[in-house]
Amino acid sequence: MALLARTPAALDALLRGLPETWTHRNEGEGAFTAVDVVGHLIYADKEDWVPRARMILEYGEKRPFEPFDRWGHVRECEGRTLVQLLDEFARVRAGCLDDLRALNLSLSQLKLRGRHPSLGPVTLSELLATWAAHDLTHVHQISRIMAHQHRDKVGPFDAFLGVLKCNGHCA
Amino acid sequence: MALLARTPAALDALLRGLPETWTHRNEGEGAFTAVDVVGHLIYADKEDWVPRARMILEYGEKRPFEPFDRWGHVRECEGRTLVQLLDEFARVRAGCLDDLRALNLSLSQLKLRGRHPSLGPVTLSELLATWAAHDLTHVHQISRIMAHQHRDKVGPFDAFLGVLKCNGHCA
Repeated sequence: MALLARTPAALDALLRGLPETWTHRNEGEGAFTAVDVVGHLIYADKEDWVPRARMILEYGEKRPFEPFDRWGHVRECEGRTLVQLLDEFARVRAGCLDDLRALNLSLSQLKLRGRHPSLGPVTLSELLATWAAHDLTHVHQISRIMAHQHRDKVGPFDAFLGVLKCNGHCA
Repeated sequence: MALLARTPAALDALLRGLPETWTHRNEGEGAFTAVDVVGHLIYADKEDWVPRARMILEYGEKRPFEPFDRWGHVRECEGRTLVQLLDEFARVRAGCLDDLRALNLSLSQLKLRGRHPSLGPVTLSELLATWAAHDLTHVHQISRIMAHQHRDKVGPFDAFLGVLKCNGHCA
């Protein structure tokens, strides 16, 4: 929760007011921009983490989670500026953390299992740990997307810039 | 400069007050913690970017840059807390950007070449673009270092977390 609470402010500090050459370009066809990533984080907070935690508590392994739509954020982003999305992410995340606190989960509840539609059985604890790691995977992705926009400006220094060597396995 | 100005606040929002399990652990022997990375960014600002820009303006290709000490930050970090380092990074970065503005570089100056001790000739423009990309490579690294600490908590979800598959090429 300490990490989950910090991600919106970290992305806000990094992205708000940056020129669109950094934030509105992707790494190629079908790839996310930094704006898409913020939309995806909002959409995942609304559809994925706390809703799935509730499903584990209610149904256990009996009912699989709803599949997650990797492009579901397109609706979140439509007609909205990056600034509006950053504000929305802060608001939605704070609400999700309130919801999580209100569940007041016990250690035995954290060990309960649900059913992921493709991964099979997962524990509530694994789901919540993944929420935090998912934030980090997208911080990782945003740094890579932005560095890509700068790729042709660094000349021979690209040899020293690991982020420019990071490829799809990090997507 | 827009990106360079934002990195200290982004890392501050991400790291300040986080439990040390996230910030004070590395990925293995000889690897950086998130605290090391902040120290490294301070040290690089003091020793690397603006000093090298000045060398290009003064000596061109005649004199190679001083080699950079990848572990030079150990002195920066000694006896200082992460909070102190985050404060110092904000202060040092703001000073470097003031220095850069004061140089009031022209387009023709940006094309001037210096000599990197291992890469050979590089332009002032490439040096400054690399400063920004270097920030991003270390945001990338911090997200990876922190995700590593969570590796054994996510269960089968690790299949979906690109940051957990990122290896040394991003270091």
